[in-house]
Amino acid sequence: MNKQTYILIENYMLQCMRDAAHDKEHIYRVLYNALNIAQAESNVDYDVLITACLLHDIGRDEQFKNPKLDHAEVGGDKAYKFLTDNGFSAEFAERVKSCIVAHRFRKSRPPQSIEAKILFDADKLDVTGAMGVARTLMYKSGVGEPLYSLGMDGMPSNGECDEQPSFFQEYNFKLKNLYDKFFTERGRLLAAERKNAAKAFYDSLYAEVENAYKNGKKLLKDFVD
Amino acid sequence: MNKQTYILIENYMLQCMRDAAHDKEHIYRVLYNALNIAQAESNVDYDVLITACLLHDIGRDEQFKNPKLDHAEVGGDKAYKFLTDNGFSAEFAERVKSCIVAHRFRKSRPPQSIEAKILFDADKLDVTGAMGVARTLMYKSGVGEPLYSLGMDGMPSNGECDEQPSFFQEYNFKLKNLYDKFFTERGRLLAAERKNAAKAFYDSLYAEVENAYKNGKKLLKDFVD
Repeated sequence: MNKQTYILIENYMLQCMRDAAHDKEHIYRVLYNALNIAQAESNVDYDVLITACLLHDIGRDEQFKNPKLDHAEVGGDKAYKFLTDNGFSAEFAERVKSCIVAHRFRKSRPPQSIEAKILFDADKLDVTGAMGVARTLMYKSGVGEPLYSLGMDGMPSNGECDEQPSFFQEYNFKLKNLYDKFFTERGRLLAAERKNAAKAFYDSLYAEVENAYKNGKKLLKDFVD
Repeated sequence: MNKQTYILIENYMLQCMRDAAHDKEHIYRVLYNALNIAQAESNVDYDVLITACLLHDIGRDEQFKNPKLDHAEVGGDKAYKFLTDNGFSAEFAERVKSCIVAHRFRKSRPPQSIEAKILFDADKLDVTGAMGVARTLMYKSGVGEPLYSLGMDGMPSNGECDEQPSFFQEYNFKLKNLYDKFFTERGRLLAAERKNAAKAFYDSLYAEVENAYKNGKKLLKDFVD
């Protein structure tokens, strides 16, 4: 891909991006991680991969405004139109679109091509490790969800069995279970390297909170009768 | 303090609290941590301490609506009025107020009484460790600040010399320097126990980001000419 083409696609992406948790630096991390993962694969079409990475979240704004919409499908359609409008072949636009549509997991449409698998893994990688924790906390804050819920005993729940949404619930139901959901070997490896950072943070946060409540509630009983 | 009095004060606090990063669980953590810290001190008036902890952030909403206001001063005044309106003595209300006013650091008004020092430390403790990271990320997200800024070289800055606000900047300019700013010995000790969790998270996040950009930007050059 020549520089001019890259800038054309990049500018369209920048024009489409808004939502903070999926801000433009997420796009570049996905692109960079995808190029890293691709090094361990063969027969990768880098033009398709780079284009799909740059444009994978351009449907976010539409989904944000109307949560019934699927940003992967909207993004795929927008990318197809943008590419064919700008002189790319229908075949190229179709291959990019299919990567974008499959980057959000649905059983009905698993990523098929190697480029789609790499994009999927690179995007997933940005929800692992410390980055996954940071992005989840920022997202939770935006939708007004708390760090943890209190159980019936008034103690902070670790989130393992929670129905109420919280950071601890999200860690247990989603973040900690991502690591075996990669399609490429290098994606899985890069994720595994980050796993401890997320676990260490969750464990520390839970320990800090649990200690505060356990000691504090006992002491409070001594002073409030 | 009897249970009825505690509930009266607690209910007034709940009625005043809104802002998510300083939500009501923060208040209970501060209360619980304060009771823990107080165990290592002598001559603590627990009625003053418990009341000041419960009411220390009741001026948040006013500051949120008008950033020129100081929530510590507003909260001190509101607490004084609430307490004297509800039959507490002016002397008690004044001692609670002085704790609340001093819980936000200003050189002109350092915490003087032991209860004020304990409240200050218990509140500060909630910005240390994993909890400090979590609350900072949630706050940064709310005000639209990013995780990191890019340097002139297009690489993520570690925040050490940044002027632009970001999580990495906040870590370097504020979070990592809190640990010697405690007034009580137990406050300092509890903070020290949490320090590694915050540092480990920052180090992991920076390593993840730096690796992605370093490898990725080099690879991108190979495929975009």
